[in-house]
Amino acid sequence: MKKKNNLKIRFLGGVGEIGKNMTALEFGHDIIVIDAGLTFPSQDMPGVDIVIPDATYLIQNKEKIKGIVLTHGHEDHIGSVPYLLKDINVPVYGTKMTIALLSAKLKEFKLPSAKLKVVKERDRINLGVFSVEFIHVNHSISGSCALAITTPVGVVVHSGDFKIDLTPISGEIIDLSRLSEIGKKGVLLLMCESTNVERTGYTLSETAVRQTFEHLFSDNLKRRIIIATFSSNVHRIQQILNVASRFRRKVALSGRSMLNVVEAAKGAGELKVPENTLIDIEKIKNYADKDLVIICTGSQGEPMSALTRMTADDYPQVKISDNDTIIISASPIPGNEKSIYSVINNLYKKGAEVVYDSIEKVHVSGHACQEEIKIFHSLLKPKFFIPVHGEYRHLKKHVKLAREMGMKDSEMMIAEIGDTVEVTPKSIKKAERFQAGSRFVDGLYIDDDDATIRDRVHLGGDGLIIPVCCISSENGTVLQRPDLIFKGITLSDGQTDDIIEIIERTLASYDLKAIGDTREIKKKLRSSVRNYVMKKTKNNPMIIPVITEI
Amino acid sequence: MKKKNNLKIRFLGGVGEIGKNMTALEFGHDIIVIDAGLTFPSQDMPGVDIVIPDATYLIQNKEKIKGIVLTHGHEDHIGSVPYLLKDINVPVYGTKMTIALLSAKLKEFKLPSAKLKVVKERDRINLGVFSVEFIHVNHSISGSCALAITTPVGVVVHSGDFKIDLTPISGEIIDLSRLSEIGKKGVLLLMCESTNVERTGYTLSETAVRQTFEHLFSDNLKRRIIIATFSSNVHRIQQILNVASRFRRKVALSGRSMLNVVEAAKGAGELKVPENTLIDIEKIKNYADKDLVIICTGSQGEPMSALTRMTADDYPQVKISDNDTIIISASPIPGNEKSIYSVINNLYKKGAEVVYDSIEKVHVSGHACQEEIKIFHSLLKPKFFIPVHGEYRHLKKHVKLAREMGMKDSEMMIAEIGDTVEVTPKSIKKAERFQAGSRFVDGLYIDDDDATIRDRVHLGGDGLIIPVCCISSENGTVLQRPDLIFKGITLSDGQTDDIIEIIERTLASYDLKAIGDTREIKKKLRSSVRNYVMKKTKNNPMIIPVITEI
Repeated sequence: MKKKNNLKIRFLGGVGEIGKNMTALEFGHDIIVIDAGLTFPSQDMPGVDIVIPDATYLIQNKEKIKGIVLTHGHEDHIGSVPYLLKDINVPVYGTKMTIALLSAKLKEFKLPSAKLKVVKERDRINLGVFSVEFIHVNHSISGSCALAITTPVGVVVHSGDFKIDLTPISGEIIDLSRLSEIGKKGVLLLMCESTNVERTGYTLSETAVRQTFEHLFSDNLKRRIIIATFSSNVHRIQQILNVASRFRRKVALSGRSMLNVVEAAKGAGELKVPENTLIDIEKIKNYADKDLVIICTGSQGEPMSALTRMTADDYPQVKISDNDTIIISASPIPGNEKSIYSVINNLYKKGAEVVYDSIEKVHVSGHACQEEIKIFHSLLKPKFFIPVHGEYRHLKKHVKLAREMGMKDSEMMIAEIGDTVEVTPKSIKKAERFQAGSRFVDGLYIDDDDATIRDRVHLGGDGLIIPVCCISSENGTVLQRPDLIFKGITLSDGQTDDIIEIIERTLASYDLKAIGDTREIKKKLRSSVRNYVMKKTKNNPMIIPVITEI
Repeated sequence: MKKKNNLKIRFLGGVGEIGKNMTALEFGHDIIVIDAGLTFPSQDMPGVDIVIPDATYLIQNKEKIKGIVLTHGHEDHIGSVPYLLKDINVPVYGTKMTIALLSAKLKEFKLPSAKLKVVKERDRINLGVFSVEFIHVNHSISGSCALAITTPVGVVVHSGDFKIDLTPISGEIIDLSRLSEIGKKGVLLLMCESTNVERTGYTLSETAVRQTFEHLFSDNLKRRIIIATFSSNVHRIQQILNVASRFRRKVALSGRSMLNVVEAAKGAGELKVPENTLIDIEKIKNYADKDLVIICTGSQGEPMSALTRMTADDYPQVKISDNDTIIISASPIPGNEKSIYSVINNLYKKGAEVVYDSIEKVHVSGHACQEEIKIFHSLLKPKFFIPVHGEYRHLKKHVKLAREMGMKDSEMMIAEIGDTVEVTPKSIKKAERFQAGSRFVDGLYIDDDDATIRDRVHLGGDGLIIPVCCISSENGTVLQRPDLIFKGITLSDGQTDDIIEIIERTLASYDLKAIGDTREIKKKLRSSVRNYVMKKTKNNPMIIPVITEI
């Protein structure tokens, strides 16, 4: 009897972490990929620009891949598509907004031949044995979808990122009725996002921010208003445009990604710019402060963003003054607190007023809190459940929440990156592990391993000592007094003399003529210099001996 | 007519930042120092252990210094006292608890000859023209005081760190009646802390945490309980001991600072250990999980702390199992979020249960919120006001709060590190700047400048390339093919060949015989190699040419 194919869910990213979401569904000879995101490096990865999922498994099985389906256009869902398309030229499906953002990205990568396919909500596409339906959800970017994927063993629903917003800024309320229909027909497996699962209650509607904007505009009639927000938050930008227009202010955009997204959103019909509102940033000098709003990037204190550069007097078009009110319309992402507070402090020092999260309701989350997540579960009533999009603590809480809603532990599973989960109509279990993890993108390169990063952490943490020696390749004598170069470590004159003496003693202890290569003596030099330096300074610098043989 | 002396307040730390608090009061030939704290380095200071105020001004004027007065025993108030005492051997005044913690610290520094003086609340000491009264306040450590300092021009009140706790764990409610008396007699200047000035309302009483502990102990009757908290939070430790004793559990302490503080607090009579409760950590193997509580350090995810080491299986006495419930009884300090969440995720992966701030009320702040700060202002009714202990944004908010309570802008001042503020009975104004700032303590050293740190940031961010060349000092010929060492950067074989060729070309372009030293050619090597590497990799590594002349 032929072995029956099972459905395999392969987790390439976004579980056990927030960021670089990527999941593959595999059945027999067919694979589809859900999202391909990136993440930004943490402080222990110096010099890394972005981190993407290790897609080796997909590249090795590229002939099976029928397509990439995107839930929405955020970087943590589409950011690694260009890297994937370099190796795998398959069709990519997403809503108009998602594809608009992706195209802009692909242009930068000079990958114009990509097969991008625009879908509408409730559209259904066939990819091999899979059939994928896009279902409208609310989120902080337009064109966000959950996916209902019909597979040979049953329906798999992936939530994407979502919230339930009953008064959304543009577009419709999340398609609860379609979700409910799908639930009634029977869902085999639900994968649901977990970002806000630690928060009780409901996430506020995006509309809640409008009232804050209105009162802030009223309170600052004579002042210039600068608003920093995520460029991808099209609804927020829409709200700012609406309020600005009502207060008869002109709006200028600043920051490359802000311009890109607004362009894409206008093109996709997701942003309605009130007439005579937008002006070029170069034109703001022709207007009085009271007639201006500037929307800019930099809500996370990113070093090269528009707001950070304005704060550092490094942005010719916008000079911060005491007639500016800056609104930071975002929450700090964990890890960014110090940067953003430093920007806020510097704005205050320039005499500006600053309004931010801890003072006013200038931001709401784009993710579902506990009660919304429960509604999602209750509509879909899945047989099996795997929480996604969260650190381990979030996934664990999400399992607990599902348990409280009646699911059994045997019906749920926490997956990690590199896990394969096999699902049949009657069972869910972990199967083989596959190659997966992180690739560091640094400048133009994808690093193959993390030795480079480890070296940087070592160099950055403890500095560097280079002993420079010169020996005769003929008779092994030391040709001149060794020299010492050091960086990122403080050594006194006495200490450098001591170290040079240690190097001379180490060299003298070897029959330099007899040794074929210098590996052994370099090792010895490293350990003897390290011992001394550790004792004297409590530092453990990288030691790189340079031995010239003449 | 002789020039009259004015009171000068000199800000050495703790304004425009949270941490390393240090203020000096100077009148004629007398100086007193209020607190001498340290701060922990931020991520942009790799390899730095701690940061202390630059005390050059005090060292240059050491004959004037009559004493150091300490408000309480937290590191950000006493941490740099040992460094200061190396240069300035003056008496140090503090409550029993503060002096106990300081003595433990001084023993590590082998500074036993320090003149430490224990004071009680409402004690008054005379230091030159100044007379200092210690006034009891509530805070997250016992023995915390505000200071009322009588000077020749009027009374200066310094709040220290405080909150208003009407149901404190041990000791009294903040001495509002004494503050009120002092206010009635007239306060010239108030310096008041600003840590929580962005939070509305009142800080909860420390007692609020007890209820959480009680219900967590009830819910975990069969499990081992591990609680991570700040070692200096003696009240929290007292509460844990009390609840543990009531539930008939033994308590073991883990982490060096935890043992030190508990020892000091017991000695100072600030901690009452219930009989037969404390056991040595080595003894826990003799008890069942259900009979144990472990109190440990590591509530901020510090890499070398007890909890982090337990999580990493690097703590022989305590192995985390699925029968452990870990309570993180602290909030993340901004910048520590990633570390602590990483510890929490790893604890969950080991099957343990974890309870932390975002889930249960397991922590309350030790600092006053807006309404408490207003009470402080209203009791003291100062003529002049300078906010302290806060980033610039906090100081700015504190001025706004004082303005709402009726103060005029001309009566208030935001000071920065290195500012001198001159106060007379009728005026407050900024006077001369003096040398002040940060000193980095790294291992055993205090760095004199920040070049070392800049080098580390460069090395850590972009890596390192060492071109190694060997030329004849006689005729200037290149003696062998240049070599290349690189760390923290990824280069392909083709690229290293290219770089070596660039080095050869650069060397060939010089009349190597004619050049007296190698500085010029090193500069040229750096720029030509950098140009190539920047173009090919978008990286800007540190380039250190090594030229051996034979």
